[in-house]
Amino acid sequence: MSMAVVVRNVARTDISVVDALAEFGVATVHEAQGRTGLFASRLRPIYRPIKVAGNALTVEVAPGDNWMIHVAVEQAKPGDVLVVTPTSPCEDGYFGELLATSVVAHGVRGLVIDAGVRDVAALTEMRFPVWSRSVFAQGTVKESVANVQVPIVCGGAYVRPGDVVLADDDGVVVVPREQAESVLERSAAREANETDKRERLAKGELGLDLYSMREKLAQRGLSYVDFVEDR
Amino acid sequence: MSMAVVVRNVARTDISVVDALAEFGVATVHEAQGRTGLFASRLRPIYRPIKVAGNALTVEVAPGDNWMIHVAVEQAKPGDVLVVTPTSPCEDGYFGELLATSVVAHGVRGLVIDAGVRDVAALTEMRFPVWSRSVFAQGTVKESVANVQVPIVCGGAYVRPGDVVLADDDGVVVVPREQAESVLERSAAREANETDKRERLAKGELGLDLYSMREKLAQRGLSYVDFVEDR
Amino acid sequence: MSMAVVVRNVARTDISVVDALAEFGVATVHEAQGRTGLFASRLRPIYRPIKVAGNALTVEVAPGDNWMIHVAVEQAKPGDVLVVTPTSPCEDGYFGELLATSVVAHGVRGLVIDAGVRDVAALTEMRFPVWSRSVFAQGTVKESVANVQVPIVCGGAYVRPGDVVLADDDGVVVVPREQAESVLERSAAREANETDKRERLAKGELGLDLYSMREKLAQRGLSYVDFVEDR
Amino acid sequence: MSMAVVVRNVARTDISVVDALAEFGVATVHEAQGRTGLFASRLRPIYRPIKVAGNALTVEVAPGDNWMIHVAVEQAKPGDVLVVTPTSPCEDGYFGELLATSVVAHGVRGLVIDAGVRDVAALTEMRFPVWSRSVFAQGTVKESVANVQVPIVCGGAYVRPGDVVLADDDGVVVVPREQAESVLERSAAREANETDKRERLAKGELGLDLYSMREKLAQRGLSYVDFVEDR
Amino acid sequence: MSMAVVVRNVARTDISVVDALAEFGVATVHEAQGRTGLFASRLRPIYRPIKVAGNALTVEVAPGDNWMIHVAVEQAKPGDVLVVTPTSPCEDGYFGELLATSVVAHGVRGLVIDAGVRDVAALTEMRFPVWSRSVFAQGTVKESVANVQVPIVCGGAYVRPGDVVLADDDGVVVVPREQAESVLERSAAREANETDKRERLAKGELGLDLYSMREKLAQRGLSYVDFVEDR
Amino acid sequence: MSMAVVVRNVARTDISVVDALAEFGVATVHEAQGRTGLFASRLRPIYRPIKVAGNALTVEVAPGDNWMIHVAVEQAKPGDVLVVTPTSPCEDGYFGELLATSVVAHGVRGLVIDAGVRDVAALTEMRFPVWSRSVFAQGTVKESVANVQVPIVCGGAYVRPGDVVLADDDGVVVVPREQAESVLERSAAREANETDKRERLAKGELGLDLYSMREKLAQRGLSYVDFVEDR
Repeated sequence: MSMAVVVRNVARTDISVVDALAEFGVATVHEAQGRTGLFASRLRPIYRPIKVAGNALTVEVAPGDNWMIHVAVEQAKPGDVLVVTPTSPCEDGYFGELLATSVVAHGVRGLVIDAGVRDVAALTEMRFPVWSRSVFAQGTVKESVANVQVPIVCGGAYVRPGDVVLADDDGVVVVPREQAESVLERSAAREANETDKRERLAKGELGLDLYSMREKLAQRGLSYVDFVEDR
Repeated sequence: MSMAVVVRNVARTDISVVDALAEFGVATVHEAQGRTGLFASRLRPIYRPIKVAGNALTVEVAPGDNWMIHVAVEQAKPGDVLVVTPTSPCEDGYFGELLATSVVAHGVRGLVIDAGVRDVAALTEMRFPVWSRSVFAQGTVKESVANVQVPIVCGGAYVRPGDVVLADDDGVVVVPREQAESVLERSAAREANETDKRERLAKGELGLDLYSMREKLAQRGLSYVDFVEDR
Repeated sequence: MSMAVVVRNVARTDISVVDALAEFGVATVHEAQGRTGLFASRLRPIYRPIKVAGNALTVEVAPGDNWMIHVAVEQAKPGDVLVVTPTSPCEDGYFGELLATSVVAHGVRGLVIDAGVRDVAALTEMRFPVWSRSVFAQGTVKESVANVQVPIVCGGAYVRPGDVVLADDDGVVVVPREQAESVLERSAAREANETDKRERLAKGELGLDLYSMREKLAQRGLSYVDFVEDR
Repeated sequence: MSMAVVVRNVARTDISVVDALAEFGVATVHEAQGRTGLFASRLRPIYRPIKVAGNALTVEVAPGDNWMIHVAVEQAKPGDVLVVTPTSPCEDGYFGELLATSVVAHGVRGLVIDAGVRDVAALTEMRFPVWSRSVFAQGTVKESVANVQVPIVCGGAYVRPGDVVLADDDGVVVVPREQAESVLERSAAREANETDKRERLAKGELGLDLYSMREKLAQRGLSYVDFVEDR
Repeated sequence: MSMAVVVRNVARTDISVVDALAEFGVATVHEAQGRTGLFASRLRPIYRPIKVAGNALTVEVAPGDNWMIHVAVEQAKPGDVLVVTPTSPCEDGYFGELLATSVVAHGVRGLVIDAGVRDVAALTEMRFPVWSRSVFAQGTVKESVANVQVPIVCGGAYVRPGDVVLADDDGVVVVPREQAESVLERSAAREANETDKRERLAKGELGLDLYSMREKLAQRGLSYVDFVEDR
Repeated sequence: MSMAVVVRNVARTDISVVDALAEFGVATVHEAQGRTGLFASRLRPIYRPIKVAGNALTVEVAPGDNWMIHVAVEQAKPGDVLVVTPTSPCEDGYFGELLATSVVAHGVRGLVIDAGVRDVAALTEMRFPVWSRSVFAQGTVKESVANVQVPIVCGGAYVRPGDVVLADDDGVVVVPREQAESVLERSAAREANETDKRERLAKGELGLDLYSMREKLAQRGLSYVDFVEDR
């Protein structure tokens, strides 16, 4: 007997915060929150360049069974991103053009799935952003129930409904809802700080000097020798 | 002592049926024939978007040895697609610009290979469609014979010479020759059926209602609860 | 106690030889030097088409630690390509937009790394050529010293500082410094030889005849039979 | 600036419940809690047969850096099992004979690590149970701090300090602390239920009859035909 | 609508031939039939040493769904070996102690599965031979029908019901039913031939001489030089 | 035209040094030489416990072609260990019982191969130590020449003929010939140093104190907090 549950009306992160986070890249946001929240690198975008930010609408699915994605659509609110995880590893094509058409009609901005998708030519033409583990035409059944809008592990990251999911060419990161505003501030600060560095580096200043690394390098045992030809 | 054979004048699927199947995607055709015939997802296209349909010209090759591809060219008929499988796993670059030039001259439409290819910049410029396991410049020798135009397993799929091979951005599927016409009909029926669904989903109708899923979901034990903040 | 060393003023291959090699593809050069020097196929370009040739500036890095790349920048000379290998397998994002800005200012032409990179949207926009094992936003620390400009194994290839590294859509190959000129000559000879073949193959001449393969095939036991329908 | 924390005096599951759970296998307990809590199959035991149950002592480690395992030892209580996860994928040998000697002295019963271990000959002789992603002699540094006794994701499973970790030849499962007693009861019930089934199956009764599957199979479209020789 | 079928009373290979093949190893039989029929090396035994030969009882299963194994038991005849393939890649634990108890009662000698198994401690104690892709406790459902006793691709090998499956520490090989007797003869001849070679090699005779390789090596361009110290 | 060479009478490391190194484990020796020389963790022993040390007899082989192993036997001297690397990735069974019989007759102590082996039941019974990438019965041909006793990259490690290869349950490490004596001394020193530590750790002394880590941990930002129940 399954005991699966759909949690309705989950609290989301304020959409203005979500949209503001979308101004930054995944690498920046990941750094700004102490290098946490990254999804595994096996989740790759189906086209490039690509970018999305939204509130996580979390979905568990059985292997080879995409029924719960259909269930999840009803729970969608504008600004959501579907975050789908199979209950055991699977690379089947859980999601294609029809489902994309459906979720777009409900304001869903994109899909992050630790499994496969299909119809990627159509999804690319629609510019519907997807990060997936595989591209695979294999169809799925609708027989097993599982949870929707509960905390999940997807691509090795712990994601709660309503957390912010940000994804770009580099991959996917999750920002916990209650930290979204402070991460936003720190992302902005980090980027401001990088502007100056970028200019100095572009002029040829060495990171060794910019970051004052030489003394620490010597302490750790780095030494310099000159090249001698006869190898 | 090797006992390899080349089968000449293999019967092909009628080219008009092949070309008609090319109107549909791999996902559709795979569904239309009962979710069978897909190649493993490790076979990826070298560029996108991409599409081909043709009659399978099957080739076995020894690991690190592309001799039999040269042998296969002589057996090619316009509308064929090369389907190449190594007798043990190998990712060497079995196929490049010269072989592509040669097979195009004999009417070959594309290549599906559970191994590697090279010269992919040139192949892309030629728009010669290729699905491969890897891109690898490693050269191959010409020392071992193997079978041409016999039934093979390629990418986990069982393929007989003259079966239809259809491939697009989603991957590769094989349609048995004797089923090609009926699969074509069912693909058309399936696509027609999807047009109406797509429109209704685009207007926001839920799959839950369109497919009448609610009762079965309840029977399987799915329940709904409202979100409570303090997790 | 670490005992890491930076070798200064390493001898490079003459830049005119390097640039001349860039006229040829990785597959051609790999063949021209006896099918040696290829990097593993897991090193893939971050965009396509892509091409670079340069003198190897070799860098060892600890897992999750990109400190030595900063050290290496000071050793760069115009025409160098960074070749970076982790001392144990790692897919973290060792290199991004800031480092790219820095190395470009010092004349570095590209990066080959058997680990991960990030900011690939920006790197693509800059057209800074990169071959990497993964794309991953994971940040790295600056705590452990390692060697710069010593012989390394990267992607399974043995690379010495100042060797030529050539990379394109097919992958990466290293040419030992002392063989660069002769490999250049043989690459040119090989390509000249292929022009005639390409033309004959394009006209439909079979490789079987062009390469006189039929007798050897028969000796190795290949036979021909005609197709009989009733499988 | 790192902001790592060690949480002291974490509440554990009652050790009598932990020990009672050890009477059951991982497969049984996983089923008894609704098929949740399994670690990825890449975590394999270093010897067999093998079995352990304990309270999770959770440890984050930087790639190539085992410092936090040393920190964790001080937090150990008898009956704990170390659960170690790297902050990015790493297969280095984080744990060997010396650390095993140390943790055994503090009552630690075993190790689950989504990374590598070394000295496995000695660990096997000590009969110190370990489940790891790899066996690799690669040494680690002690430079980066990370969290100890906070909730982590290890092998794709979400684990909180003080949860029960059960592991055997089949792999690893986590039981949330607050559910440990009820899972224990359900495990016992499940096993009792299986005894009768096992006897009937051993006598040759078919699962088809024991589980009354025939009608449902027919409804789903399964049919029977007799073999005809001429394939 | 599923259209799955169970084929009853499939013809088997004569059991005396099957048992005689069991005298030989997988490597020998694979060679004796022209280096064909090997399953992929990812199928590994759950204990060692191990050996089985039997008639293939073929089973297709949906991902995460072991229903058809229950269906297959009814079709078993003494001397059969279950050969199970998922319709898309899956590593769930399709088979454990209860199913082993059941199939043993029906004369099944072992299991080859391109997916996962569980209860491996119990299976090992029962000495029930299993070759699988993974060990994973993940449970499976019983919702989707698929074919039993039809030709399948398992581990990349094409297997028809009633073919001989032979498996040992080296892996798994299939022998087509109609070739079983001749393969048996050739296996015996091959092994007889090796006895003499083994004795001569054990006495120190070189393979270079035993197989008369020196001339061919020279023709292919192998040369000998003496070591010079100063590399 | 191949240009392969066999180097005869390569200088070896003094066998007494080799044998003395065999007293230490791979992990210890790897540490003693500055954490260098490890082979990739994909090279696993075919049985356990296992141990060997010897002088590297290096062999390149073409994919699917074991000819050069036969050539190498003639170059063997008592105390050698075969180190075999394919020129492109291959998992075929290059080595089995007959070759083992032959090399043992020439004093070869074991095999390290970045490819596959077969007859592992027999090799295990003979207690012939092997570390390989795979176990696979796939046979190989004898058609392509390659180099013997030249420097190679095997499993990502750079190995020269006559270097010491040490392998145990943890994997494989190479010690450069000219460093063998000093690495031996440092290994002994390292092990002596560990004896005292092991005793203190066994008595419950914390690594935090034994290694005086507390101050550095605090400086790096580690803090301690007490557990609060209500998560």
